[in-house]
Amino acid sequence: MTQLLSARKGGITPEMKKAAAAEGVSPETIRDLIALGHAVLPANARRKKRSYCAIGRGLTVKVNANVGTSMDYPSPENEERKAKAAVEAGADAIMDLSTGGDIPAVRKRLLEAAAIPFGTVPIYQAAVEAVRRPGSIIDMTPEDMLGAIRRHAEDGVDFVTVHAGVTTGAARAIAESGRICGIVSRGGAFLAEWMAKNRAENPLYERFDEVISICLEHDVTLSLGDGLRPGALADSLDEGQVTELMALAGLARRAREAGVQVMIEGPGHVPMDQIKAQVELEKKLCDGAPFYVLGPLVTDIAPGFDHITSAIGGALAAWAGADFLCYVTPSEHLGLPDEEQVRQGVIAARIAGHAADIARGLPSAIERDREFSKLRAARDWKGQIEKAIHPETARRVRAASKPSDDKVCSMCGPFCPFILSGKPGRKK
Amino acid sequence: MTQLLSARKGGITPEMKKAAAAEGVSPETIRDLIALGHAVLPANARRKKRSYCAIGRGLTVKVNANVGTSMDYPSPENEERKAKAAVEAGADAIMDLSTGGDIPAVRKRLLEAAAIPFGTVPIYQAAVEAVRRPGSIIDMTPEDMLGAIRRHAEDGVDFVTVHAGVTTGAARAIAESGRICGIVSRGGAFLAEWMAKNRAENPLYERFDEVISICLEHDVTLSLGDGLRPGALADSLDEGQVTELMALAGLARRAREAGVQVMIEGPGHVPMDQIKAQVELEKKLCDGAPFYVLGPLVTDIAPGFDHITSAIGGALAAWAGADFLCYVTPSEHLGLPDEEQVRQGVIAARIAGHAADIARGLPSAIERDREFSKLRAARDWKGQIEKAIHPETARRVRAASKPSDDKVCSMCGPFCPFILSGKPGRKK
Repeated sequence: MTQLLSARKGGITPEMKKAAAAEGVSPETIRDLIALGHAVLPANARRKKRSYCAIGRGLTVKVNANVGTSMDYPSPENEERKAKAAVEAGADAIMDLSTGGDIPAVRKRLLEAAAIPFGTVPIYQAAVEAVRRPGSIIDMTPEDMLGAIRRHAEDGVDFVTVHAGVTTGAARAIAESGRICGIVSRGGAFLAEWMAKNRAENPLYERFDEVISICLEHDVTLSLGDGLRPGALADSLDEGQVTELMALAGLARRAREAGVQVMIEGPGHVPMDQIKAQVELEKKLCDGAPFYVLGPLVTDIAPGFDHITSAIGGALAAWAGADFLCYVTPSEHLGLPDEEQVRQGVIAARIAGHAADIARGLPSAIERDREFSKLRAARDWKGQIEKAIHPETARRVRAASKPSDDKVCSMCGPFCPFILSGKPGRKK
Repeated sequence: MTQLLSARKGGITPEMKKAAAAEGVSPETIRDLIALGHAVLPANARRKKRSYCAIGRGLTVKVNANVGTSMDYPSPENEERKAKAAVEAGADAIMDLSTGGDIPAVRKRLLEAAAIPFGTVPIYQAAVEAVRRPGSIIDMTPEDMLGAIRRHAEDGVDFVTVHAGVTTGAARAIAESGRICGIVSRGGAFLAEWMAKNRAENPLYERFDEVISICLEHDVTLSLGDGLRPGALADSLDEGQVTELMALAGLARRAREAGVQVMIEGPGHVPMDQIKAQVELEKKLCDGAPFYVLGPLVTDIAPGFDHITSAIGGALAAWAGADFLCYVTPSEHLGLPDEEQVRQGVIAARIAGHAADIARGLPSAIERDREFSKLRAARDWKGQIEKAIHPETARRVRAASKPSDDKVCSMCGPFCPFILSGKPGRKK
């Protein structure tokens, strides 16, 4: 029985208890959110010895880190290192997007390395296998696509991205819209190519009941992919994107009715002034389903710094109600990230999520900053470093710009405002 | 005659023409904004061979980079290198905050090294000189404070931070408010200490007419400092901050009436949900004077990443109407930044400003992203690198994760969505 079916019957599962404890809320809160479809608790029944978290309305914003091999960088060792770096940096979930090397072996390895909620995009494997047969992406069969989802589910994957909303209608809207960046999602591009060449509807859309049935069996959470997300600010909220979102809304309803947990994936590249509309549109159309955004990036022109462009957008999106931030690393748009870039991406997204938690009024988030500021005012450097979002970085930066007097920092030195005036407790 | 007095008489100065050309607007637009006090054009009449920019309503968001020696790092060479790095990274203005070594010599050197609008905080020099006499900060005389402003003005400094709003009343509000982080501005802390020990009002407040007269003589733009800005999220918009802001509003009015250009400095540490209120309060109270914000940082807990926390806050502030972003580097709260941290700080603030320019609907900003996205869709790597916000970084990141096929990147390789589908022009 899925977490959703249990919740609907009023049951509290061990996974709900664990997620509630991690969140600092009651299991009943988690259960009720899941029952409404306003939160998901990715928890493949086959996968043990791992942590759980709930993602959704009113809960702390969660962060996902993408790792995975590519054709150019197929080493499983590297990806394992990155996965561990992501976990250490505080990622709440991880996705394996491998397209190179022995994909099932990499997945198995990463599932063991990262004991946190774990997602994949099964169509990547189906596409790579079709190419290797040899053939091309358009030689994938519907069975290949569904089979990949089944194999991932059986491996213990907690959530899968399924681009079931890339319908012929939505793809046509893109083709006819004069979009600048066309289709920027790999899954979306695979399917659009497949549909165009095979003159057929998206099998994941046509056979969505089979997708539901696989997910139901293993309690795999469906992450309905936005294969037609905008990849340029100019393409945000265009007809293609909205057509797909409306298709996803209908699919989400069907999945939930069947008892499958669902979240909705969102953009992408969005100007700051459209972010709130993006979030509110998703929440309204999809009956409050958790919103899982990639970024969004608030400018197109900053390759090398897209962890920052997406921290700005992610903070705004999460403040507006997005629940789950997919990190973006500094190497986005330029190449596969290395371990350090993975770390930077996770931390930037965590900052965005935390800033939004504060803006949303979450008492635990507000309290964390308050306590931290007390350490700052007391010039408790050890405490500040220990409680910083990434202690290792804080320690390294301070050590690199060493003060002659370790009670202060090397910027103000003896002119430290905390020494001069305004000390805490000065009033008394 | 100051730019403001010229503008009020309807005159268009050579500096207005240069600033207008740099901005891509008409000189009349710049003139009218200056005349209203809604923009400033920092342009010390003594300083030649440099660029100009206008800062204010409806113009592109500008970025300032702070450099300057400290007691622990007094080397002028280092600061010159940082100043050049800031200019190369695209800073629109620079401030010399030196408190170590031969302060006048450093200033002269930096004024030559950075041919862009240049600001200082004269009270730093007054305080350091008082300590060196030897003595302590409370031994500064009012003449020391005013004399430092005069000397900076005579050296050609374009804008000076003057903490004239740190009145005894405002300092009392801080002391009585139970603030977590007290006074975090050095200038504010110097003055609060001075007032408390000397049992006297802030000389910069009491003798503000003399400040005005110095600025008028050399057309130094006044940057009215927020010496009592919040240094913790919990302290944002508290009584002390607002008391000072109201004092600044009155001082700004007096300065403008006399013909001195004025901008207002703002926080600091502010939760996302209070940023708009901060900006709107300043704009309302200060009759639309340009708002120059430090950050704001949207969380307290991320030392080592405060270029990111302040990029989030800066983008939001600028979208809400802030005009000028003071960068924050990754070393903020930990030590004096090095050259690379200066570069990172400038770029992060530029990203924030540009994202806000887009959200504010500035056609040139929107167009830049549109053109960039066309290069991306065409997989024009050379073009993307050349037009990126920091070409050197984009080039380095791409080279470090080299693809085997240089038509794509190493993340997607042959599965590049731009190859597969959605190509620009596919429709035709």
